[in-house]
Amino acid sequence: MSVKERIEQLRNEMRERGIDACIVPSSDPHQSEYVAEHYTARTFMTGFTGSAGTAIITLTEVGLWTDGRYFVQAENQLIDTGIKLFRMGQDGVPTVEEFLKETLHQGAKIAFDGKVISVEYFRGLKSALESSEFSYEVNEDLVDIIWKDRPQKPCSKVVLHDVAYAGESRESKLTKVESEMETMGANYYVISGLDDIAWLLNIRARDVKCNPLSIAYVVISEKKYFLFIDDVKINSEVRRELEMANVEIMPYEGIGEFLGRIKDGVILLDVARTSTWIYSSIKIKILEAMDITTRFKGIKNDIQIKNVRKAMLRDGVAMVKFITWMKKTIKLRNITEIEASDKIEEIRSAGENFYDLSFASISAYSSNASMPHYSATEKNQATIKPKGLYLLDSGAQYLDGTTDITRTLAVGPLTVEEKTDFTLVLRGMIDLSLQRFLYGTTGSNLDIIARIPLWNAGMDYKHGTGHGVGFFLNVHEGPHRISVIPNNIVLKKGMVVSNEPGVYKAGKHGIRIENLVVVAEDEKTEYGGQFMKLETLTLCPIDLEAIEVSLLTNDEKSWLNNYHKTVFEKLSTYLQGEELEYLKQATVAI
Amino acid sequence: MSVKERIEQLRNEMRERGIDACIVPSSDPHQSEYVAEHYTARTFMTGFTGSAGTAIITLTEVGLWTDGRYFVQAENQLIDTGIKLFRMGQDGVPTVEEFLKETLHQGAKIAFDGKVISVEYFRGLKSALESSEFSYEVNEDLVDIIWKDRPQKPCSKVVLHDVAYAGESRESKLTKVESEMETMGANYYVISGLDDIAWLLNIRARDVKCNPLSIAYVVISEKKYFLFIDDVKINSEVRRELEMANVEIMPYEGIGEFLGRIKDGVILLDVARTSTWIYSSIKIKILEAMDITTRFKGIKNDIQIKNVRKAMLRDGVAMVKFITWMKKTIKLRNITEIEASDKIEEIRSAGENFYDLSFASISAYSSNASMPHYSATEKNQATIKPKGLYLLDSGAQYLDGTTDITRTLAVGPLTVEEKTDFTLVLRGMIDLSLQRFLYGTTGSNLDIIARIPLWNAGMDYKHGTGHGVGFFLNVHEGPHRISVIPNNIVLKKGMVVSNEPGVYKAGKHGIRIENLVVVAEDEKTEYGGQFMKLETLTLCPIDLEAIEVSLLTNDEKSWLNNYHKTVFEKLSTYLQGEELEYLKQATVAI
Repeated sequence: MSVKERIEQLRNEMRERGIDACIVPSSDPHQSEYVAEHYTARTFMTGFTGSAGTAIITLTEVGLWTDGRYFVQAENQLIDTGIKLFRMGQDGVPTVEEFLKETLHQGAKIAFDGKVISVEYFRGLKSALESSEFSYEVNEDLVDIIWKDRPQKPCSKVVLHDVAYAGESRESKLTKVESEMETMGANYYVISGLDDIAWLLNIRARDVKCNPLSIAYVVISEKKYFLFIDDVKINSEVRRELEMANVEIMPYEGIGEFLGRIKDGVILLDVARTSTWIYSSIKIKILEAMDITTRFKGIKNDIQIKNVRKAMLRDGVAMVKFITWMKKTIKLRNITEIEASDKIEEIRSAGENFYDLSFASISAYSSNASMPHYSATEKNQATIKPKGLYLLDSGAQYLDGTTDITRTLAVGPLTVEEKTDFTLVLRGMIDLSLQRFLYGTTGSNLDIIARIPLWNAGMDYKHGTGHGVGFFLNVHEGPHRISVIPNNIVLKKGMVVSNEPGVYKAGKHGIRIENLVVVAEDEKTEYGGQFMKLETLTLCPIDLEAIEVSLLTNDEKSWLNNYHKTVFEKLSTYLQGEELEYLKQATVAI
Repeated sequence: MSVKERIEQLRNEMRERGIDACIVPSSDPHQSEYVAEHYTARTFMTGFTGSAGTAIITLTEVGLWTDGRYFVQAENQLIDTGIKLFRMGQDGVPTVEEFLKETLHQGAKIAFDGKVISVEYFRGLKSALESSEFSYEVNEDLVDIIWKDRPQKPCSKVVLHDVAYAGESRESKLTKVESEMETMGANYYVISGLDDIAWLLNIRARDVKCNPLSIAYVVISEKKYFLFIDDVKINSEVRRELEMANVEIMPYEGIGEFLGRIKDGVILLDVARTSTWIYSSIKIKILEAMDITTRFKGIKNDIQIKNVRKAMLRDGVAMVKFITWMKKTIKLRNITEIEASDKIEEIRSAGENFYDLSFASISAYSSNASMPHYSATEKNQATIKPKGLYLLDSGAQYLDGTTDITRTLAVGPLTVEEKTDFTLVLRGMIDLSLQRFLYGTTGSNLDIIARIPLWNAGMDYKHGTGHGVGFFLNVHEGPHRISVIPNNIVLKKGMVVSNEPGVYKAGKHGIRIENLVVVAEDEKTEYGGQFMKLETLTLCPIDLEAIEVSLLTNDEKSWLNNYHKTVFEKLSTYLQGEELEYLKQATVAI
């Protein structure tokens, strides 16, 4: 069935119910960034496979809204569908709300599946559309009716995450969350975020590709904990361990009824992570706040940091093996982008504690790398030749931590422009790594440090400088980030975040250099206060062949030489032969 | 009557009405930062004269909450009052809300004058105190009952502000505001902010010291405009001009009744600037948004910028005359802080278009300057001696613009520490002046550029880097600012803002260097976008005698030399004799 046919079928259902517009978002009931196949309703309706985007289907028009990361991909995937692409953030492009206001008549009926739209999103929508007096139908999943071969909900087995890795028992976490609930004045707390649940209960699974999660809800009441999950996912050992921590297993679909039966008290929830369906099932007073678990999870304990440093060793060794292979092979023959990403996956997956990739690798040669979220396919990929730049953004889920690293490699001779751009990106990455900052600083205060070398040369990158990173959890994790977008999350000791400036020139090249760093304490001074710093976790050489040394300041040069010295010291014992030889060359002082 | 007696009298009134706590803020009905004497109820009740602070009076305790700028002053002024000082932001110091929660019994009654508390403040209070089930009494001004010799409301005459200065007629502004109201879906718009009203109608007055404002409200309805103001303030010429623009004069006190009579439509207001009294008098649907006038006023038109550049010439000439006098006189004799601030006032007020000071000058010698908001008094002031640093933060209201400048001067030999600190502050000021930034950047992204030289040396300043500045209006003006505190106001062409890093060492010295700058367009590039820059408006030498040249980078040195070249070129034609001679020396290239 073509996308066009699906749209017509959906319109039939809409007409029967007097519905004028359908909103099909890219989310699941847990507001996950990456969703299981069962929840890819927006992809089913449009053919667009990107991780972010919203489709609006009216009786006469279909629009897809997505952001700059996906403009090119969406253009290609929407060909022949009749769907109009709305490039979010570009001048003159209406928002979803503006489109609805302009397209629909006063009093029109808008439908969406209340299980996959968050309270926050719905509120924003209603408030923007207030004057139009639309009505909303949220109790039916219309796409489900026409999606005959819809994939089943995922059903991977839950595994326990050893406290030796997690650094804190589920009992301890549950007690801390309860104590925080008490301070906040909540008797109940419903958690929808899958990574928050995995963190809280020290459980992992494989329900979502690259994200080691199990689809579930948690409700905490005084001294009792309820995990709403499909029974078949839980083996007897897991059940025993959870029950020992007072966690009762409940049927996943039963959460709404369970919440509806609570008669007294105050329930805490995060409107950004909770669906309108969950929200409307609650009859008692609601206290709205950011998930306690999100705040706690964002700060890694000392054991987690120690563990992730071990994962980084393994990941760095894998990267050096890959780079050695790439640099050697490309002198002999061309390599496809997918061969390269398969290669790094093969090397990583042979390592200890490997569980999964942490996201689909971005393996991008030359001008393909100018799309920050490029994804090579068998049919549509470039062949890497011994010339110019190759970018690899990849990472893994290890039992002892999540990695995410980007290296851009000279696979042959570079132009002056390529070398200059590479060096400016590197300067941004180093300048942020070098910058101490006062306790209280947020990622939106800090972001531009990494941009300044590029800004001074008239360039910029249209994405944040860094995202929080989970611990054997989602590679994108809140609450902190390093971004110009306003946020009030103070960078605290133990927060792990990426540092990844870039430069993207369509038709030419794309460069990104990414390390993970952890926030740590620096000195405390009389006339300043407590200073903080970023300690680099990632261990992998930065390609000296791509650097124009004369553009670096002395401080930057010495950061790079120290970094390379550390990389050599840490990785060399795990390498030998040509790989050790490569590491030696790649880490010489400049 | 002593503060203690006043508190007892207030408590009698509270007891009669069954009130358990009184909130006495520092605001007026217009949420002005600086208020007319009539509205200094908090000062009357506590003796504390700072511009920011809140008093809470219960039947057994009195607390005053103020911020770091005023800790020292409040400590002194609260001696013998029995009032407890709560140093806001310090560890372990409860907020007003926490104090009320801890002190009052469940169900207690809290009173405040609903005319001077904003909707936003009241909402924050109620939400923080939700669990305590307090009740609120907002319809009576209890302080007024016991304040027998309360100063009258100010009654200065309204004057017209010539369009040759303002750059845009009131007709044009009113039309633009109406068109924006239409876009936003509002039929009415109530404006409480005094500077917004003065801007909108091109009127000025002297109701508030240093702020050329008239106490009034404005209501805009479709094609009709109402100015609620005391009739006696309006002479026949002003009345005629306003009436020509369809502005009808209404009695100030009649606003509540007027709003209550509106039966249909949507009314726009800004909850941060509107009192709970105004809000509760409205019977129709309310659209809450930042004041349209605040957004428009913040962007100065080309004529305003041209005018303010003229005001800057005059102000710079005044400053050079002052500095020449200071540098010469201090070699001959000591000078008191107040003699110095009187001197700059005398020089400025002799200038063309002078209307008032823009704030009370901060004239602070040596360790007094370590208090960023120090205020010398006849009884309590230092004598400037030929040694160390002297700080003068001052400015004026001219018909053609508002100025605000800080210069820290070497009045004699400096220590190495003083010179180093001065140079680091200067580096921050210059680095921000030099930094281009992409359109879309906010002041909270930009702030740390000015801090980095200090942070790298373990120092910081506990205030924002810059505040918006009005045009012949308030010296502190929103919506933009340069501060680490999150804000989403994009810095746009025509916004005027201060650039004023500092360093403050209690018992030693305080240094601040402040220029006003205006946001302007820089180049537009293919791989970046529209870049913006800060153009410096202030024209006055920065004391070369206080600079340790070896600490400046080449870029910083060349900025300073260029700046001094401009200052000399612009100011020299207005100076002669020893003042010209001083200017020449003070602006030589280093």
